[in-house]
Amino acid sequence: MMKALVVVAHGSRREASNEEVRELVARLDESAGGSFAVVCAAFLELAEPSIPDAIVDVIDQGAGHVTVLPYFLSAGRHVATDIPAEIDKALVRRPGVEIHLAGYAGSSKAMLPLLLNLAKS
Amino acid sequence: MMKALVVVAHGSRREASNEEVRELVARLDESAGGSFAVVCAAFLELAEPSIPDAIVDVIDQGAGHVTVLPYFLSAGRHVATDIPAEIDKALVRRPGVEIHLAGYAGSSKAMLPLLLNLAKS
Repeated sequence: MMKALVVVAHGSRREASNEEVRELVARLDESAGGSFAVVCAAFLELAEPSIPDAIVDVIDQGAGHVTVLPYFLSAGRHVATDIPAEIDKALVRRPGVEIHLAGYAGSSKAMLPLLLNLAKS
Repeated sequence: MMKALVVVAHGSRREASNEEVRELVARLDESAGGSFAVVCAAFLELAEPSIPDAIVDVIDQGAGHVTVLPYFLSAGRHVATDIPAEIDKALVRRPGVEIHLAGYAGSSKAMLPLLLNLAKS
């Protein structure tokens, strides 16, 4: 089954911040290898594409399984409530697709060594 | 010379998010080993301690070199302008101390494999 990854950022009024996310996700797409056939960025607000639009788009490209990864540092309302609600909107438009909500960036065990390495450099 | 690390988060109205940062920083303190004698959290807004208060506190504990690490995902106004301005406030109160502004979390090359591992798990 074709797998897709949608990385969800908050979205910013500052377009350079949205572009920084899109560039990170483009690099992620290059690194994803065989794990995900398609990797794309989506935004909770203030930037395009929306989460449901991005999910519908990868499904229409052939994905039968979509992983949604919140690019957020803490488990606030956006991660707990708003992103699941956006996923539900996509499921209304494309029922029957498997969608997996991955852990948010700040929940990764790799965040600790990442910060320590940054602090030392 | 005694070195200190101050990890700066945005700060949230949701106290659980601030507490999540404090817990991450406490784990960072345990992992920092010989690199930093003191590791503490600070917040740009909405939570305590402020950046200048945290910097002054570690200096008064004996630090002669302070690394400030922005726990932010993108290089927006907060990282580029607001955090340096808060550092300047600390330097007015404790002149002559060396303060190094580290890269923000989202600038780390380790962010890409972190996200890919989260997406696969």
